[in-house]
Amino acid sequence: MEVTRTLARFIVDHRASELPQKVRHEAARSFLNWVGCAVGASRHATVERALAALDEFSGPREATVLGRGDRLDIMLAALMNGITSHTFDFDDTHLKTVIHPSGPVASAILALAERKPVQGEDFLHAFILGVEAECRIGSSVYPPHYDVGWHITGTAGVFGAAAAAGKILGLDEQQMTWSLGIAATQSSGLREMFGTMCKPFHPGNAARNGLLAALLAQRGFTSSNQGIEAKRGFANVLSTAFRRGEITERLGETWEIALNTYKPFACGIVEHPAIDGCIQLRNEHTLKAGDIESIALKVHPLVLELTGKRTPQSGLEGKFSVYHSCAVALVHGAAGEAQYSDEAVRDPGVVALRDRVTANVEKGVHEDQVHVTIKLKNGRTLERHVEHAVGSLDRPMSDADLEAKFRVLAGDILSKPEADELIRLCWDIGRLKDAGEVARASVPATAARRARAS
Amino acid sequence: MEVTRTLARFIVDHRASELPQKVRHEAARSFLNWVGCAVGASRHATVERALAALDEFSGPREATVLGRGDRLDIMLAALMNGITSHTFDFDDTHLKTVIHPSGPVASAILALAERKPVQGEDFLHAFILGVEAECRIGSSVYPPHYDVGWHITGTAGVFGAAAAAGKILGLDEQQMTWSLGIAATQSSGLREMFGTMCKPFHPGNAARNGLLAALLAQRGFTSSNQGIEAKRGFANVLSTAFRRGEITERLGETWEIALNTYKPFACGIVEHPAIDGCIQLRNEHTLKAGDIESIALKVHPLVLELTGKRTPQSGLEGKFSVYHSCAVALVHGAAGEAQYSDEAVRDPGVVALRDRVTANVEKGVHEDQVHVTIKLKNGRTLERHVEHAVGSLDRPMSDADLEAKFRVLAGDILSKPEADELIRLCWDIGRLKDAGEVARASVPATAARRARAS
Repeated sequence: MEVTRTLARFIVDHRASELPQKVRHEAARSFLNWVGCAVGASRHATVERALAALDEFSGPREATVLGRGDRLDIMLAALMNGITSHTFDFDDTHLKTVIHPSGPVASAILALAERKPVQGEDFLHAFILGVEAECRIGSSVYPPHYDVGWHITGTAGVFGAAAAAGKILGLDEQQMTWSLGIAATQSSGLREMFGTMCKPFHPGNAARNGLLAALLAQRGFTSSNQGIEAKRGFANVLSTAFRRGEITERLGETWEIALNTYKPFACGIVEHPAIDGCIQLRNEHTLKAGDIESIALKVHPLVLELTGKRTPQSGLEGKFSVYHSCAVALVHGAAGEAQYSDEAVRDPGVVALRDRVTANVEKGVHEDQVHVTIKLKNGRTLERHVEHAVGSLDRPMSDADLEAKFRVLAGDILSKPEADELIRLCWDIGRLKDAGEVARASVPATAARRARAS
Repeated sequence: MEVTRTLARFIVDHRASELPQKVRHEAARSFLNWVGCAVGASRHATVERALAALDEFSGPREATVLGRGDRLDIMLAALMNGITSHTFDFDDTHLKTVIHPSGPVASAILALAERKPVQGEDFLHAFILGVEAECRIGSSVYPPHYDVGWHITGTAGVFGAAAAAGKILGLDEQQMTWSLGIAATQSSGLREMFGTMCKPFHPGNAARNGLLAALLAQRGFTSSNQGIEAKRGFANVLSTAFRRGEITERLGETWEIALNTYKPFACGIVEHPAIDGCIQLRNEHTLKAGDIESIALKVHPLVLELTGKRTPQSGLEGKFSVYHSCAVALVHGAAGEAQYSDEAVRDPGVVALRDRVTANVEKGVHEDQVHVTIKLKNGRTLERHVEHAVGSLDRPMSDADLEAKFRVLAGDILSKPEADELIRLCWDIGRLKDAGEVARASVPATAARRARAS
């Protein structure tokens, strides 16, 4: 069975009216969370440096960099919004594949929607289909693909962007097959880049390149028709195993976006159970850092593999240190973006506690679990087994939780009325006349004035 | 030993005055051949479709699409010139790695040179260093990397573009290390795309993305410092073997561009011995197609793996058919671009002869060899063993051969005086005051007038 063409046909033929309401609502939740993350990081050094490098090369400035007055051509705007939305490592996670699904997809099509108005209904539909393509393709090669060293948000994300952008552009089946093929041959992103500015670059680049794929395919630029499944196609070249059924079976019956989750903490998902456990113990026992002799974690192997940095030197590195994360959880009772600043990582109180954290892999501990043992200086021992971290599928953040997270993220960028209005538009995304309205509403009045004046 | 940083330091510290004259001359030969290929293909459908898709998104139109009146921003121009130069599959080959080295590198820096004048001396130096980086990195993972299914011109080319563009931009050692890292995390291109428009897309995309890497690095956009050699870096993720010494040893003592070769035939290099053998027998025995009963080839395994299409349907597919190539060699005594048109592939005389060609893998036949046996209808048998195909390192094309090839390629695009002038500039590239002059001189007066009028 042809995999690429089957997926292309599904994306082309599917109608928005067939979407279950639950799926639409989860898509709106994903979109709200994505916009919040992008706006929140819009002044980060990663973003400033990328913009300084690229602004002067922009084509027609049709699209908005979320949270900023800057406008760029649609491919550069897609790149920038993909970067901003993943800069805090605070965006969504499709736990089955550890893909952060919204970044590549939403960044590509929101830029397109500013070029030519797109009805909210069509936008949400393309978003859901893009996430579907991306997560199914990711599922077909996960985990060996990820284990080899690929950053799956980049490698699978480019397909999601190509699929969603192609849907918005109204590609036919052959064009959509090419769009996925042109995406396949651009699939890239290495896990070695974790802890550097290239990590958020990956979803941005996936958005930029997926959009390019759809635009080329629209004009008849050809690729293989078996970009995903051929012997020398994506799956066989970038993975040691390939379950094609993950892509072709039950299309239109199950929806990957229904499995999306949102981070309550601004760091890698694998650390969340440990942070959750530490915050629970801190709050229940009103612990102070000075009370604590040691913290011992029993964890899943990925925790140390991904977040095993013993002595992080920067805020960004702190996100890849379960030791730092547990320390701030105990000191501050939180692990938001503020807890991953360079200052927070160098704070002597945090450093002292960090050095008292040990983490060991324990067989049978699954990815969403942790066992935390805190020894106090007074001789007492506190223990907490976390079965499912907050923010997981089994303990999801509520709509109100997501709004609260959005407000903290946008707090430094938007006024309260501006944040209120933007939240309203995000919830309404599926009903807007023009989805691009969200992008424009993300710009604070002060930045918009500055941009007009310059 | 640090691989990425060692290579970065070499590129940053090396001075043009240390280049041997022989290396400079080979670089000028490579550049001439590259310009000819790009100009020759500048009206191909592949190019027209890509341009139709992307022109309207161009930023400042600072750079030339070779052979055309169109101007684009430097990243899109790099993309387009990388595409045109590989569209005919007629460009150069670094036989050790089967990389087509000039496309990604020259496309990136010629665009840069039109943005801000670059002295020919510096241009040629950056070009040589870019090819050095690209081919050394390719050598470090070849052949397993290629065998897995990667199109090495794309995957290694992005490093060459990043290195050369970084040299032109004057990056320091840390920035160059980042530039190579940002290149590593964009490394992509699948062999599955051979025979489609995505094959020439690969060097174009490598040029575009390598240029992006250098521009980002210049502004302090960070990557891993071990993008090439880390456990989850380029070499280990994209290959099953890695010989780091190929990158770090004898830097500045040996030069990869000295190993460059140029194609006398407009198709995959692995077919060249067979074409050469057929043309030799045809010319020596003044063979006519009607005299021939059968043609039997004994070949290296890659010939069938890469060019085993039995019944090509288009000119492009014809390039991946050793059967078609031998048929046109015998019918026309040539295998230039004209022999790979859609018409040539459908020509009944060619098809009839094509179906009489058999090719079998023979142990001990190396990549540059072939054994051709032609049975004639009169009962005679002709045989030819080719030890080294014309255009190989052992039987290189002369400077005059390269000029003649250039003239055939440019013949449909430029007038004779325009071609003469462009050839002169290419030979002079290392002495020009402004290397960008070459790009502007590639535009025929008629196209320049059209562009000004529109």
